[in-house]
Amino acid sequence: MDLIYRREILIVGLGLIGGSYAKALKRLGFSIAAIDAKQSSIDYALENGMIDEGYSYVNEEIVSRADVIIFALYPDVFKSWINDYQDLIKDGAVITDVTGVKSCIVYEIQEILKEGVEFIAAHPMAGREVYGVENADDRIFRDANYIVVPTEKNTKEAIEWCKELGKLLGFANISVLGPEEHDRMIGFLSQLTHCIAVSLMTCSDNEHLADYTGDSFRDLTRIANINDEMWSSLFLLNKDVLIKEMDVFIREFEEIRNLLNKEDREGLREKMRLSTKRRAYFDK
Amino acid sequence: MDLIYRREILIVGLGLIGGSYAKALKRLGFSIAAIDAKQSSIDYALENGMIDEGYSYVNEEIVSRADVIIFALYPDVFKSWINDYQDLIKDGAVITDVTGVKSCIVYEIQEILKEGVEFIAAHPMAGREVYGVENADDRIFRDANYIVVPTEKNTKEAIEWCKELGKLLGFANISVLGPEEHDRMIGFLSQLTHCIAVSLMTCSDNEHLADYTGDSFRDLTRIANINDEMWSSLFLLNKDVLIKEMDVFIREFEEIRNLLNKEDREGLREKMRLSTKRRAYFDK
Repeated sequence: MDLIYRREILIVGLGLIGGSYAKALKRLGFSIAAIDAKQSSIDYALENGMIDEGYSYVNEEIVSRADVIIFALYPDVFKSWINDYQDLIKDGAVITDVTGVKSCIVYEIQEILKEGVEFIAAHPMAGREVYGVENADDRIFRDANYIVVPTEKNTKEAIEWCKELGKLLGFANISVLGPEEHDRMIGFLSQLTHCIAVSLMTCSDNEHLADYTGDSFRDLTRIANINDEMWSSLFLLNKDVLIKEMDVFIREFEEIRNLLNKEDREGLREKMRLSTKRRAYFDK
Repeated sequence: MDLIYRREILIVGLGLIGGSYAKALKRLGFSIAAIDAKQSSIDYALENGMIDEGYSYVNEEIVSRADVIIFALYPDVFKSWINDYQDLIKDGAVITDVTGVKSCIVYEIQEILKEGVEFIAAHPMAGREVYGVENADDRIFRDANYIVVPTEKNTKEAIEWCKELGKLLGFANISVLGPEEHDRMIGFLSQLTHCIAVSLMTCSDNEHLADYTGDSFRDLTRIANINDEMWSSLFLLNKDVLIKEMDVFIREFEEIRNLLNKEDREGLREKMRLSTKRRAYFDK
């Protein structure tokens, strides 16, 4: 299962992330094919040397030739694709994905997948506030985390292969987490923060304040510029975890509100000292 | 009241902000004196050419000589100072401050201040996560807002003088707001964001997640590294405004939680689209 012997890579879904994978892997000499519903994305990638070959429909020949298939699709589209076309995938191929939630997808795909093909899930924790293959840029991987998300069904070889893929893509940190652990982590670190940023932006008509904004407000709301189609799906797919994290946050926020209301200066300072202490762990 | 004729500047309180004022104004050729309780801060500023003269006690001669006095002190210390030493201030002098909340201090200082001295309040919206004169750096003013906060008691001349001071310090934007408007603005843009960042850090024991943190969590919690003495005071001094803003935020956050709970995809997307639209106003 050595990566070096898997030369033929197919990327299904050529948006920001799929395109960034293509760029990184093409540079390393792999043969890159792509499928995307938008012909214009395929054309752009071909013109810019990001892929060797590409189609806006499921071309049977390139699917059956692929040693590796990387799915950069929304979870439900990914599932339908596997249902409809998995018969074309060759024996011994390995498939992976870039989906931002895992429990809801990994088990199901592994369940329906035919024998002889292995699905090893992964989450490249990288993104930008822009979309589309035109904005693809594999430099976004450089300071980012790549998480391999195996289940009991995965082989050691596939896990190692997937870690190797993360390294080749240029990620700074590669780690391994189970699907449930992954979803709890992402619920707190990513989804909860997006809920907060959106709430801060929608809670009051604050446009007149734009002139006074300092860095703190700008930092907290950078991610309030959000792809509503993608993020509403991610929230709903991780609903139970996210609601739990939101409730924990609300309780804490209300506790701080009540300390302020009681004018409990020492209580507030205690919270701030804990906050400062914990934040130190998150400094780069 | 032209700034150019006010050559003798005294800075009371030589920390990060007082020190950064000293650096900027010294470079422009003003004569800078300073008073700070810590002799080590005075020594540092003298050794590094940030001030011409400095004392760790209230030196009567430099107070009475000053055309301008800039107070970079905590609000209650500022009030006591005025009570104790205002008799030393010369007739025709103008004083200003850097306090982060205004209603609770501006009226009171103007009330107790002797005739012949004018207090024009200002808020330099700049800071760093480090403290002390050793970290003073007037480059923090470059992209920042400087807000002049007059009351009905202020003269046009003092308001203009204070705007001019903001320009000389190097601020990108100078604006004028009344004390109440200022406090509402700061309650929302700055204090609420700090409450959120602290809550996110203290709501659960998240240290084990540090390895997986992406940019969004890091951005939202940068300000969770917080000076507990200063910020607890700022929160308490603006308590009513801040509690109101916290309640507005909680209501909105809970609304988003409930949309998620009901699996109202369209409702979530609506919030995200509003968020994205509003965020565009805040892009630099």
